[in-house]
Amino acid sequence: MSSIYQKYATRVEQIDSLLCVGLDSKLDRLPEHFLADETPQFAFNRWIIEQTHSYVSAYKPNTAFYEARGAQGWHELKLTLDYLHEKYPDIVTICDAKRADIGSTNIGYVQAIFDDLGFDAVTLQPYLGQEALMPFLEREDKACIILCRTSNAGAGEFQDLQVGTRPLWQIVAEQVVTKWNANKNCMLVVGATAPEQLGVVREFVADMPILAPGIGTQGGDLAAVMQAGLDSNGQGLIINVSRDIIFGDNPATQAQYYQNEIKQYRV
Amino acid sequence: MSSIYQKYATRVEQIDSLLCVGLDSKLDRLPEHFLADETPQFAFNRWIIEQTHSYVSAYKPNTAFYEARGAQGWHELKLTLDYLHEKYPDIVTICDAKRADIGSTNIGYVQAIFDDLGFDAVTLQPYLGQEALMPFLEREDKACIILCRTSNAGAGEFQDLQVGTRPLWQIVAEQVVTKWNANKNCMLVVGATAPEQLGVVREFVADMPILAPGIGTQGGDLAAVMQAGLDSNGQGLIINVSRDIIFGDNPATQAQYYQNEIKQYRV
Repeated sequence: MSSIYQKYATRVEQIDSLLCVGLDSKLDRLPEHFLADETPQFAFNRWIIEQTHSYVSAYKPNTAFYEARGAQGWHELKLTLDYLHEKYPDIVTICDAKRADIGSTNIGYVQAIFDDLGFDAVTLQPYLGQEALMPFLEREDKACIILCRTSNAGAGEFQDLQVGTRPLWQIVAEQVVTKWNANKNCMLVVGATAPEQLGVVREFVADMPILAPGIGTQGGDLAAVMQAGLDSNGQGLIINVSRDIIFGDNPATQAQYYQNEIKQYRV
Repeated sequence: MSSIYQKYATRVEQIDSLLCVGLDSKLDRLPEHFLADETPQFAFNRWIIEQTHSYVSAYKPNTAFYEARGAQGWHELKLTLDYLHEKYPDIVTICDAKRADIGSTNIGYVQAIFDDLGFDAVTLQPYLGQEALMPFLEREDKACIILCRTSNAGAGEFQDLQVGTRPLWQIVAEQVVTKWNANKNCMLVVGATAPEQLGVVREFVADMPILAPGIGTQGGDLAAVMQAGLDSNGQGLIINVSRDIIFGDNPATQAQYYQNEIKQYRV
């Protein structure tokens, strides 16, 4: 078992939570008093982390919201990760970057995301194939979370195309499980808006963890997701909620609410 | 015609060149005397630009090599773009970022790449579909260059899968041409290592520009690429060479060599 599989499983059991909070800290959505801070995104993230950490097994910043601010955003993402590593080293950190380039070019992303920022895991695009992604996949100490069936309304344009008797997203899942996962460090993304596909994926990935974004603002059905996605140990899901927690009136209450909702379906 | 199609066509005719230089300025590959500079990647890029600009219609930095250095790399990419905009505004700038996220999340990348850095174009992953990429596609003033058939050895794992009677890369090309291109701002990536596929793509995309990376170190065959990829006006290709120019003994001579080689096939 990869160290990140293990890290996640341990945290889940410690606090009985499959909740991941998406740190999608878009500058113009932050409460106004954070904007006066020299590092507003970091100040906001630190506050969110303090409000929510007891309910959370993973944090997932999406790089788009930081890159939008150039070097400054990158700096604040780094401060956020440093803070998490120092204060909450047991919580899994996922870089939602949806990267993928060719072979050695990926080394730049590996260095940035795994080494400099120190993330435990990264989301990756499958289109270029396993050979292109080897610099990520070779990192046994980290996790690679491959996009399989995404949560957006138009996800089916290519992902649902039939290849022989199966849709493309299923082929992606099969390749990842049977070929890409030699280091036991792969996971998959299946949107919470697609519980039927999630059930199919769960059937043949055994206990591989699945990141399910799309609960909350995007409208995914938590009950359906839990029923379709849990592994035989009542684990194996990373349920991500972003805006509905971080921009809620009370992030602590919201996080606790989701932790409890999720918990109730694990029984 | 989009302003970037036009910008590229104008530059190509002005200097008779389809050459794009990839600014893949990996820090540990830079000649040693640049490393003493406070902004080594920018200093190197400025030198490469001065050596090569007369032979070049586009520059294409790959973000991985800058992100590898965190906030500092992002800052030096910005300095590079500012320099290009000031000194050589007629040269097309392509951000090789291979991005794609869901809907509004992409706004962060749009802001970073098109607005703050001021790139003319960006490379994008197709897997999430058109609906996800709308924040990019809506920008009529910019160009979206969609990965179709990439140049890496393992590109075929998903891209060559048969969907009905056609491979996936062909479906991607068809969707982009017939549906995504309402603003006439789409282009495609087809690797120079895949001239056969390039010929098929050219047949139904009419004069849509195609970015063909993979000449030089990656071993693409220039003659085959030019024969398969030119449009009926002897244009429509963006031939990218990276390492073989920027890390060559004499970048100016190398760029001129490639410009001439390409020119000879346009006659």
